Amino acid sequence: VELLVEHVVSGGVSGVFVLGTTGEGPALPGRVRREMITHTCRVMTGRVPVLVGITDSSYGDSVELARHAAEAGADAVVSAGPMYYSVGDDLLCRYFERLASDSPLPLFLYNMPSCTHVSISLATVARAAQIANIRGIKDSSGDMGYVHQLRRALCGRPSFTLLVGPEELLAESVLLGAHGGVNGGSNLWPQLYTSLYEAAATGDLAAVSRLHPIVIEVCGRIFQSGTYGNHYLEGLKYAASLLGIGSGVAGMPYEVLNEGGRAEIERAVREISEKVHDALGVTTPV
Amino acid sequence: VELLVEHVVSGGVSGVFVLGTTGEGPALPGRVRREMITHTCRVMTGRVPVLVGITDSSYGDSVELARHAAEAGADAVVSAGPMYYSVGDDLLCRYFERLASDSPLPLFLYNMPSCTHVSISLATVARAAQIANIRGIKDSSGDMGYVHQLRRALCGRPSFTLLVGPEELLAESVLLGAHGGVNGGSNLWPQLYTSLYEAAATGDLAAVSRLHPIVIEVCGRIFQSGTYGNHYLEGLKYAASLLGIGSGVAGMPYEVLNEGGRAEIERAVREISEKVHDALGVTTPV
Amino acid sequence: VELLVEHVVSGGVSGVFVLGTTGEGPALPGRVRREMITHTCRVMTGRVPVLVGITDSSYGDSVELARHAAEAGADAVVSAGPMYYSVGDDLLCRYFERLASDSPLPLFLYNMPSCTHVSISLATVARAAQIANIRGIKDSSGDMGYVHQLRRALCGRPSFTLLVGPEELLAESVLLGAHGGVNGGSNLWPQLYTSLYEAAATGDLAAVSRLHPIVIEVCGRIFQSGTYGNHYLEGLKYAASLLGIGSGVAGMPYEVLNEGGRAEIERAVREISEKVHDALGVTTPV
Amino acid sequence: VELLVEHVVSGGVSGVFVLGTTGEGPALPGRVRREMITHTCRVMTGRVPVLVGITDSSYGDSVELARHAAEAGADAVVSAGPMYYSVGDDLLCRYFERLASDSPLPLFLYNMPSCTHVSISLATVARAAQIANIRGIKDSSGDMGYVHQLRRALCGRPSFTLLVGPEELLAESVLLGAHGGVNGGSNLWPQLYTSLYEAAATGDLAAVSRLHPIVIEVCGRIFQSGTYGNHYLEGLKYAASLLGIGSGVAGMPYEVLNEGGRAEIERAVREISEKVHDALGVTTPV
Repeated sequence: VELLVEHVVSGGVSGVFVLGTTGEGPALPGRVRREMITHTCRVMTGRVPVLVGITDSSYGDSVELARHAAEAGADAVVSAGPMYYSVGDDLLCRYFERLASDSPLPLFLYNMPSCTHVSISLATVARAAQIANIRGIKDSSGDMGYVHQLRRALCGRPSFTLLVGPEELLAESVLLGAHGGVNGGSNLWPQLYTSLYEAAATGDLAAVSRLHPIVIEVCGRIFQSGTYGNHYLEGLKYAASLLGIGSGVAGMPYEVLNEGGRAEIERAVREISEKVHDALGVTTPV
Repeated sequence: VELLVEHVVSGGVSGVFVLGTTGEGPALPGRVRREMITHTCRVMTGRVPVLVGITDSSYGDSVELARHAAEAGADAVVSAGPMYYSVGDDLLCRYFERLASDSPLPLFLYNMPSCTHVSISLATVARAAQIANIRGIKDSSGDMGYVHQLRRALCGRPSFTLLVGPEELLAESVLLGAHGGVNGGSNLWPQLYTSLYEAAATGDLAAVSRLHPIVIEVCGRIFQSGTYGNHYLEGLKYAASLLGIGSGVAGMPYEVLNEGGRAEIERAVREISEKVHDALGVTTPV
Repeated sequence: VELLVEHVVSGGVSGVFVLGTTGEGPALPGRVRREMITHTCRVMTGRVPVLVGITDSSYGDSVELARHAAEAGADAVVSAGPMYYSVGDDLLCRYFERLASDSPLPLFLYNMPSCTHVSISLATVARAAQIANIRGIKDSSGDMGYVHQLRRALCGRPSFTLLVGPEELLAESVLLGAHGGVNGGSNLWPQLYTSLYEAAATGDLAAVSRLHPIVIEVCGRIFQSGTYGNHYLEGLKYAASLLGIGSGVAGMPYEVLNEGGRAEIERAVREISEKVHDALGVTTPV
Repeated sequence: VELLVEHVVSGGVSGVFVLGTTGEGPALPGRVRREMITHTCRVMTGRVPVLVGITDSSYGDSVELARHAAEAGADAVVSAGPMYYSVGDDLLCRYFERLASDSPLPLFLYNMPSCTHVSISLATVARAAQIANIRGIKDSSGDMGYVHQLRRALCGRPSFTLLVGPEELLAESVLLGAHGGVNGGSNLWPQLYTSLYEAAATGDLAAVSRLHPIVIEVCGRIFQSGTYGNHYLEGLKYAASLLGIGSGVAGMPYEVLNEGGRAEIERAVREISEKVHDALGVTTPV
């Protein structure tokens, strides 16, 4: 954890999100999740904000994690809503309202329909944005039409933070008004992502054209089947291990990459690191 | 819990399944789940087997629940596989293999695609049936074609138990060779379900024709939108409270039924109780 | 066509359904569909009723096919509703109401969500059953819970015909009150299906237990991936050709089976024909 | 048709696409589709290219429409692939290969999973791009990650045209390398769309920021439930009628908007026309 935190902080990120989807939060035992929260807050020492994923099939356990996060000194919690039990719009809205009230920390919504099989509707986000303790949303639907309509729906609430999950969409989201991204690949090459963000935020289209295709290559090669398959975590964890971070193994239900998959990732990490170096002058120790 | 256990045991059930979908297992905090296991095993005193649901987004917490169930004296555990993180057939198969090996109690698979968004393929069940510690499957897919093909795929393993979840399918499943049902409505009128099972198992078509339509009415009226909607648990819990069991409230993410919904359930419970009385001579205290 | 018609009529079927899903109706050019209707009605000479599939993405072309069917002397038309353009329940209901009024022949609904991606709700069927020119429904959803709830919803309209498409479900549907089946495999071994129907309709459970597993084997081996895959038509068409019916080729978008697939089908047809012979004394010329 | 054609040509479009989804191609009888092709080519007199939608459940009828389009003088045909019968990647690929060979006109692929329920995979597009008679793709999946990966997969074939359907995505698609859009709303305010295209193509971010939100408003208010509902065609057709184009009625399976819906559209058309006027100096006759 220390290594990863130092890696991304030195890459200039504006915050860290622990126990998200890429961090395998919902797959970790409750005890491990609590340790991870405590530990991250300790090594972070307030340098950038810490957001903590509390998504769980049990509402009670979600609230308990939020309390633990508050005690550990985290800055906010993030919930993708219920899973296993399906809910309609109305129940989802009341779920977030109650969670906002039960959580001692500010709450961010997390729209992650590929994992939760629940979509947070525009109307639900708009209602949530009226609640003081709900501060923003991370959208990982991959649907830019949704992002744009969300911006329109939230135009009266400019302080409600709108972040996107899929890094393929970072450039356009920031160019067209979102506040930023929370992207899995920034664990690998943080400067690539902070630079692309910067370029988009300042309207430097030339830099965007240089960096955006590298990010697309990260998705297409490291996450492999990417949005289009199952095991992006297996690729990402192995790539991280090549960069000196972590053991390379995703937890259950995932498995170690097979030999062919490892060779592909090794080549991709080498070639992408070179492109990052050529574009940004940053050396990645592969 | 005592009330419910006595109610169903006196109704002649062959086993109880705690912390399943209807028991809201995945929605309860880990601590409450452990208490529920201990308590159920204590009041059951070995009269019928106790199966314990251990489905959780965290593999580690599932294994921990299985260990707790073994210590409490339960007879088997039941897992619907991972949730949140999607898996293909291969990973799912390895998940169950490893769980069978890590669990001190025999394992039943639980095919519950409407909640887990994962379907356990025929091939995965056939492979699982080769593993000594995997004893059977509860299928809640609602797909009788799957049940029939499963029977064909398992024909060399008659001891591998095949149970169905949706009570609409209890009669035909047993008539055509499945071993039984694990049905939500048997918490309400257990004798209706044990009698329908008995009628189907002995080929008494006249009794099946009398009882099956009452079960269909339970699904259509108590579970309301039933398979076709969201909140069957809200209706079922309120119906149970009318029969003197429980508080009538489903936990988060669900809510209390509105007034119209309550009136509908009240009328349905009254009329179905009368039909159960007419058919079986059993009096239900409404 | 003559060969197939004589084959199934001699097998004792109570009617024929041309241009359904197995008949590849929607995949045939309009001109060919009209010829097929005319030709079938001519060779049938009124021996059993002829139902004609008119499902098309164009409402106008559906109505035109219904008129052509009336002129050719068919007995009823069958529509699965619109495709390509998605509709909610309300629009679907009005679609069938208007089609019933524009069609010179009685209309049967066809619930085929795997192809049309529209489910006909219970409420829509119940409303349709009030319309004089709508006579019944063929349900191919594979969802027996739906079939049972449909029977309950239609209990005031016993003359509204309820037929099921998936042959895995024929036995239980008829045992529990549906009127019959319209099953793809009855093009291959019609006597197997008429005998199973007869057994179920008369409550002869011993005969059901003998014949039902053979039907399950047809689904599992001829339709191969069956409900669980894409190309059941390729297997079925090749099997038909082995029984002397048709060229063995499914039209676009399907293709000829590969060699391995052909060998599998050949063996399955031989072994199933033997089982049909042993069970019913019927010789199939393979 | 004349009115609409003159309206969009005077708005500066680079081509017209008849019988697409918005043009209700698949819902029109074959005879009407042929007339529409002939008529459009006649009034267009070669001013801009005419692309013709030939998507149909019958492959034979699709080829026939392609031949008719060639005789009428159209420039290319567009196919979304089969519908009703589902296909995997392999069959889809062979479908387009054969269609490219049977069509006398160049073929564009049309990725429209919300209507066809088939997604054209990146690999299939990459293979199709090797075929001389396949010239490009219109992607209406709404998935910008797909668009970016497609660009990466096609980087060796810069002449293969990449167009996007959803207008919410026009700005970012063109900013990040796609060739343009084929957008339903350009039937209403063509200059808004051609100007936004121009702004994005020239990297004029200030103009993009001015025009993009108006397009988002068109989607959110005219298409109403937009991507998120059923009846965008009802809103669009009524809006067109307010601008003097067409009768305001979408064909079956759709219906006339109710009174509330009409009032909403009327207000939206008025307010958006004002914004278009303020931004571009273009007067829309409402």
